[in-house]
Amino acid sequence: MAPPEQQLFERLMAGDKRALARAISLVENDDPEGWALVREVYPHTGKAAMIGFTGPPGVGKSTLLGALTKLERARGRTVAVLSIDPSSPFTHGALLGDRIRLSEHFLDAGVFIRSMANRGALGGLSEAALQAALLMDASGREVVLLETVGVGQAEVDIINHADTVVLVLMPGSGDSIQALKAGVMEIPDVIVVNKADHPLTDTMIREIRGVLALGPREGWQVPIVRTDAVTGEGVDELDQKLTEHREFIEAEGTLRERRRRNLMNEVLAIATYRMRRELDASLQQDDEVSELLDRVVSRELDPASAAATILERAALSRARE
Amino acid sequence: MAPPEQQLFERLMAGDKRALARAISLVENDDPEGWALVREVYPHTGKAAMIGFTGPPGVGKSTLLGALTKLERARGRTVAVLSIDPSSPFTHGALLGDRIRLSEHFLDAGVFIRSMANRGALGGLSEAALQAALLMDASGREVVLLETVGVGQAEVDIINHADTVVLVLMPGSGDSIQALKAGVMEIPDVIVVNKADHPLTDTMIREIRGVLALGPREGWQVPIVRTDAVTGEGVDELDQKLTEHREFIEAEGTLRERRRRNLMNEVLAIATYRMRRELDASLQQDDEVSELLDRVVSRELDPASAAATILERAALSRARE
Repeated sequence: MAPPEQQLFERLMAGDKRALARAISLVENDDPEGWALVREVYPHTGKAAMIGFTGPPGVGKSTLLGALTKLERARGRTVAVLSIDPSSPFTHGALLGDRIRLSEHFLDAGVFIRSMANRGALGGLSEAALQAALLMDASGREVVLLETVGVGQAEVDIINHADTVVLVLMPGSGDSIQALKAGVMEIPDVIVVNKADHPLTDTMIREIRGVLALGPREGWQVPIVRTDAVTGEGVDELDQKLTEHREFIEAEGTLRERRRRNLMNEVLAIATYRMRRELDASLQQDDEVSELLDRVVSRELDPASAAATILERAALSRARE
Repeated sequence: MAPPEQQLFERLMAGDKRALARAISLVENDDPEGWALVREVYPHTGKAAMIGFTGPPGVGKSTLLGALTKLERARGRTVAVLSIDPSSPFTHGALLGDRIRLSEHFLDAGVFIRSMANRGALGGLSEAALQAALLMDASGREVVLLETVGVGQAEVDIINHADTVVLVLMPGSGDSIQALKAGVMEIPDVIVVNKADHPLTDTMIREIRGVLALGPREGWQVPIVRTDAVTGEGVDELDQKLTEHREFIEAEGTLRERRRRNLMNEVLAIATYRMRRELDASLQQDDEVSELLDRVVSRELDPASAAATILERAALSRARE
């Protein structure tokens, strides 16, 4: 009989939902077996269309994802949804409540839905989420929908992993519009204005058009799609724009370029996160380091000098390993 | 005659505005002389009241800072204002335009105003900004006002350096309210609703009250202040609340605690940023590292394994130095 990890690999590659769920849990719990599994499946990734959705809380991202999932299923394509919830433990569940809107798909073997919540630094959550996306891709899901809360410049890095980035707003998303205007928020590939029956929608769309008009006139022109996720209005058009964007990046060769950049950012993010975790641990456990910090607090030693010393100690202990 | 760096130190400590400007430029340009100067002045820091202002672009933070500066000057206290502009080079200047609102103070020797714009990673800007705040403190400024754009969870780390954090919103800041509700944005010490003559202000304040009601009932109760920065309405009340918060944290001993936590975060942020910069450099310059990345792109080597190898190489080369 094959060893259990070999079984998990084979079941995962065969598209088994429970194997995928188990694999993601291993990664989420930072289990070395999970990392080994990602290493093993990695050569089989890169086939799924990865679409990232970001936007402020409460704009209706989950309802939209539900509607898009339905469309893809009607075409016979398999779907995975990964929702990242970076909310604090204090109000925990405020965002996970949204998951209920995807519930009609829970029993469909062609749909895999997973939420991940933040239990530490955003870096750690993001690191685990990216590995989870790779596992979904390897398991043969044709479409992977990534969802995260983003306001202003704040998207969890997961968006770095998407081939297409969709920003979802609603009437009243004044801060996001201001952030787009001021160049604090990056311009996405597609903008959705959800809850489009609101009287302020037209004004808002005019404002967004004004911002987009400042951008480049060549290459991909960012479409603005009006949707009403509850009635399903505009979802076909959004689906159409997603297809057009995919065709555009495939034709221009920018899909390859974008994935190269995404993967580099991912490697750098994982390395930085691990380094930060090691530094954090040394602050907690290393007596010499905590003495250094005491000297910073008593204003004897400046923060930059303390940081330099801590980095040297970390490098030495790593090199000794 | 004293060497030039000794002169700069002495002039800075004497409160000379031009010396302060020069010192900040050294830090901004990553000049080793700037870092040496911060090291030298650090034992003389910790006296200024550091107040951080965050909020979406366009809510009127700069106008508020102007009004508060006027109040402090009328009391005879010296003020420094540090504005951090994280907007992209694409729309550069969109936020710096705000600086004009502080112009009436430009000729006053008791007021020092400085903007810093992002020219690289936010980490780098934030690192330089924190050093600039220390220089302002050392030069004898009694009040240091830090201003940065924040939407949702996205504040530049500079806010970590403040004794009091003020969140400025305006009617229409729907995304920020949603982010507060969902626990994606941290609760500040004081909330300001600017442009308070708007018809939607009352609804908005009710919503904020609702969020705050979920918080702890003991300790500091976050006040909501209505202001109209243009007419000056509410600025006295804001000033009063800032004083109350300072008295509260001084009386409870939390000022010391908060500064300890802030300084630890700062040390960690500087160390992480430097590490990331080194990793970035190795991606650019080290042939073996760029080969590793090519293997990630061609799906031979997974991102986490590549990150681990890069970290080992970085540690070895650091340990050899």
